[in-house]
Amino acid sequence: MADSMKGLKRTHYCGDVAEIGSEVVVGGFVDRIRNKGGVIFLVLRDRTGVVQLLFNETTDPAIFEKAASCRSEFVIMAKGEVRERESKNDKLKTGNIEIFVTDLRILAKAQTPPFEIVSDTKVNDELRLKYRYLDLRREPLQQNIIRRHEIAKVTREYFYENGFLEIETPMMMKSTPEGARDYLIPSRVHQGKFYALPQSPQIYKQLLMIAGYDRYIQLARCFRDEDLRADRQPEFTQIDLEMSFVDAEDIQECVEGFIQRVFKEVMGVDVPLPLPRMTFADAMDRFGSDKPDTRFGFEINDITDVVKDIDFPVFKDAVAAGGTVRAINVKDGAATYTRKEIDKLVEHAKGIGAKGLAYIRWADEPNCSFKKFLAEGDLEKICSALDAKAGDLVLICADRKKTVLSTLGALRLICGKRLGVIPEDKYNFLWITEMPFFEFDEDNNTWVAAHHPFTMPMEECLGYLDTDPANVRAKAWDLVLNGTELSSGSMRITDFELQQKMFEALGMTDEEIQAKFGFLVDAYRYAAPPHGGMGIGLDRLAMIMCKADSLRDVTAFPKVQNASELMSECPSFVDDESLSALGIAVVNKEDE
Amino acid sequence: MADSMKGLKRTHYCGDVAEIGSEVVVGGFVDRIRNKGGVIFLVLRDRTGVVQLLFNETTDPAIFEKAASCRSEFVIMAKGEVRERESKNDKLKTGNIEIFVTDLRILAKAQTPPFEIVSDTKVNDELRLKYRYLDLRREPLQQNIIRRHEIAKVTREYFYENGFLEIETPMMMKSTPEGARDYLIPSRVHQGKFYALPQSPQIYKQLLMIAGYDRYIQLARCFRDEDLRADRQPEFTQIDLEMSFVDAEDIQECVEGFIQRVFKEVMGVDVPLPLPRMTFADAMDRFGSDKPDTRFGFEINDITDVVKDIDFPVFKDAVAAGGTVRAINVKDGAATYTRKEIDKLVEHAKGIGAKGLAYIRWADEPNCSFKKFLAEGDLEKICSALDAKAGDLVLICADRKKTVLSTLGALRLICGKRLGVIPEDKYNFLWITEMPFFEFDEDNNTWVAAHHPFTMPMEECLGYLDTDPANVRAKAWDLVLNGTELSSGSMRITDFELQQKMFEALGMTDEEIQAKFGFLVDAYRYAAPPHGGMGIGLDRLAMIMCKADSLRDVTAFPKVQNASELMSECPSFVDDESLSALGIAVVNKEDE
Repeated sequence: MADSMKGLKRTHYCGDVAEIGSEVVVGGFVDRIRNKGGVIFLVLRDRTGVVQLLFNETTDPAIFEKAASCRSEFVIMAKGEVRERESKNDKLKTGNIEIFVTDLRILAKAQTPPFEIVSDTKVNDELRLKYRYLDLRREPLQQNIIRRHEIAKVTREYFYENGFLEIETPMMMKSTPEGARDYLIPSRVHQGKFYALPQSPQIYKQLLMIAGYDRYIQLARCFRDEDLRADRQPEFTQIDLEMSFVDAEDIQECVEGFIQRVFKEVMGVDVPLPLPRMTFADAMDRFGSDKPDTRFGFEINDITDVVKDIDFPVFKDAVAAGGTVRAINVKDGAATYTRKEIDKLVEHAKGIGAKGLAYIRWADEPNCSFKKFLAEGDLEKICSALDAKAGDLVLICADRKKTVLSTLGALRLICGKRLGVIPEDKYNFLWITEMPFFEFDEDNNTWVAAHHPFTMPMEECLGYLDTDPANVRAKAWDLVLNGTELSSGSMRITDFELQQKMFEALGMTDEEIQAKFGFLVDAYRYAAPPHGGMGIGLDRLAMIMCKADSLRDVTAFPKVQNASELMSECPSFVDDESLSALGIAVVNKEDE
Repeated sequence: MADSMKGLKRTHYCGDVAEIGSEVVVGGFVDRIRNKGGVIFLVLRDRTGVVQLLFNETTDPAIFEKAASCRSEFVIMAKGEVRERESKNDKLKTGNIEIFVTDLRILAKAQTPPFEIVSDTKVNDELRLKYRYLDLRREPLQQNIIRRHEIAKVTREYFYENGFLEIETPMMMKSTPEGARDYLIPSRVHQGKFYALPQSPQIYKQLLMIAGYDRYIQLARCFRDEDLRADRQPEFTQIDLEMSFVDAEDIQECVEGFIQRVFKEVMGVDVPLPLPRMTFADAMDRFGSDKPDTRFGFEINDITDVVKDIDFPVFKDAVAAGGTVRAINVKDGAATYTRKEIDKLVEHAKGIGAKGLAYIRWADEPNCSFKKFLAEGDLEKICSALDAKAGDLVLICADRKKTVLSTLGALRLICGKRLGVIPEDKYNFLWITEMPFFEFDEDNNTWVAAHHPFTMPMEECLGYLDTDPANVRAKAWDLVLNGTELSSGSMRITDFELQQKMFEALGMTDEEIQAKFGFLVDAYRYAAPPHGGMGIGLDRLAMIMCKADSLRDVTAFPKVQNASELMSECPSFVDDESLSALGIAVVNKEDE
């Protein structure tokens, strides 16, 4: 059996710099060990850092021999005297000291791990996830998990200080009739009935406002049964908040304060307030995206008027069909984008739905893909409109506005990354406001709600509800950071009559309304304060603040793309008895 | 449509006492309204309290008329001047002031609620739960929810200050083969397979210790699919913690500090430390319970030796069969417990499993139920052993030890409550230590683990593992408050060989071990620091600290005994399409 820690009590973490001459007790994992013949250097690791232990054969042969038997990842505890180190290591907090060990306990031996526990691992993800408990020993992952804890801590402090109450809402709730993304839970007591895991606590937080709780926050686990993209998890955490007796600007101001605080406290980064704002329409026009990355230029310019007289069929046809001609100037892009590289961009544009891509590559001289259609001075006019100069690459798209914007928006990002003009250490926040209220559903040729149906339209758009859905904007907004949507929020409708009108505009029958939102609609009959709120993706925020590439790197026990956990091998088959106790049966089964 | 709050910004909550003469803006619900002809007094309520608004017909007839149209529960906002009140109300924080209103907005009208929103409601639970959002407007419930928030806040502060990291563990995890109480979630991607909701994050927190996170805390939602007792919820919250490089006492010391802090900060109650400790064996002997309420006496005394020579067959037979004779002295109980009342106690004892109950009721003189079997001096000997005096009631039980203890333990509580000797404002904490390692399963005539199989046995009991299971005690403990189990904890086995031995002692085959705990057992092969932890029931703690009678009174949206939520009517039926997408079918359905 292993040693016991009896009689020893840890006095310091490894990363704590202890006073020279003091006696300390440390515990942790053996990071590495070097036996230099007569002297052993053992680097001990815990979540705070590492410290060097020293063993001398002549001073205490028994302890020396025990130390010599240690291997990487053994768990040990050691008592000893802090001494000044001969060969100092400036990179370590404890690089000036070492501990001369007088009592050593091997608390647990480790068998050889399937991969080395080092910061910079080359091991494939699958193996790391199967042995997640070992992967989690690696310092970069530990630092991420610790930082995520700090983010959550500061989040709570900030909102509590601002009068928010954290109120726990149910995890087992009612499935919505169209809750296609709900995870369901069969009820044993009420056979044939199901609970659903929350996609968000939306309904409950609105009820809490109706109930007078005024300011609510919750770091709420949410669930969505979607086919996972690389950067999704089936369960995720939302900083979920709702406020009463406020308007949109009050909520934004409150969240801005949070952003400033958390970036300052956790990263030491100053975020100047107020954060910049842009309407949805402007964002689409300038960046071809509702979540523009504003850390670099290459903005989209409308050159329809500039090119409208050029006898180039691609432009002409697009304009004649009510479309538009727009362009981005990829500054200094000519050298990188050779003819072959440009072809790839064209292919990419086609993949997005554009018919093609015109360009002006100005290396030694402007090289234009539609040169033969140009009259004298046309090229200069275009370049001048785009401020294009020698060394630049101009990409032009002519099509329906929607296609042009999505194409150029995507190419802008690709070129920005390729040219390395996106600064890594910049945090560009941006409010996107006045989101469209309706989205056009092309499959069904109808307008559908872009948000949940309690979202407030902007006052000045109320008149368009029946007549011009495309022009109705919502009191809804997003918070974007470096091109990532971090959060979205909206004001809710509290007026019962307006709510009815909204339902009508959405073509919902009374029965549908009752089935989907019955008790919530009823609740509003008993009066609600004006209220609105936001949901901020904690995982995504943590990912950005940890400079991590994936949500997996800020989640202790993540699931992979097919929603399974490789370590525990879940989900898993359960026995028939369990199923029959629930009154359900499996009718389709994946291969075992 | 309702008024807008445009141009008004709340300056004060209703409960804030504002300076006389200042201009304030408040918002909230109309609590009550009195029209005194020419003057209207309107009491406005928010989560912080109430304040009186005053409207004068002569000063501003239009505002007066608007105020007159207000009804209870309308949501309004009002601007006005703070004035000293003529008839002061000492019971209110704002009882000295009133607001003379110069701008009134009716933000939302309320239809008449199904019950009055008053503190002391007589309305039945069912109606209150159906309209939970209205019930939650009642002040006592708001105070509970706010207090629960404060408890959670102090909890996090305390543990964070003590080096704990809050780490989120998965809600969708692997179902354990014997997880009879697991809620299951069918997987859409892996048809036929299921996730389970966590009964606790036990496995994950042990993995976090193996991964070197050292100190973990989480306010973790847990789920258990049990038939609900009055005082259970299918989902509940646990203050879940785990510590490395510690022994049992270190954990207890840490949790004691938490208890002291949370009671002081939230309730202003001083809890002296260290908390008293009692072994499980002592608790059973003295109180007939593993969660004794030590706020009052009536302790159990072993009088076997005192009565062994009395020729009373009940005693004789019990002793001859290896049983015991024990008694409690219900101090001053003689007056309350008439002959008829004692008969009820006897019935109760029989319900628990006792064959009967002997007693000495000392009203004017000692009246003994087995008087005819007594020799000279016997009665005095018994009374003397129990310190029984005039006015007392002695209850005696003779049987197997287990039956005697459970009987007298239950009667002790009944009598204590009946006599009103249990002080309501006392908080008696108690550590129960050295819990039994095995429990005897009478159905299968075998010893089974009383805790999860990673629980550490006490060192001195290791020798009994194979030979004398009844005598093996665990490094496991409970924290009891006023007779309620608040928390339990244990040290975990980190020695791989000892773990194997434990599995053998529990008669588990390698296959069973692998199926149940596979990856966790594997994880321990890579070395774990000594560690242990606790789970503290947050809901129960909040219930006690709110002096509430039920978990429902500290849960925003509780479920009822059959695990349904009356407001949203969940669980509910889902459409066949959803089920077929999951590859499952309902084979048994409760009546619609």
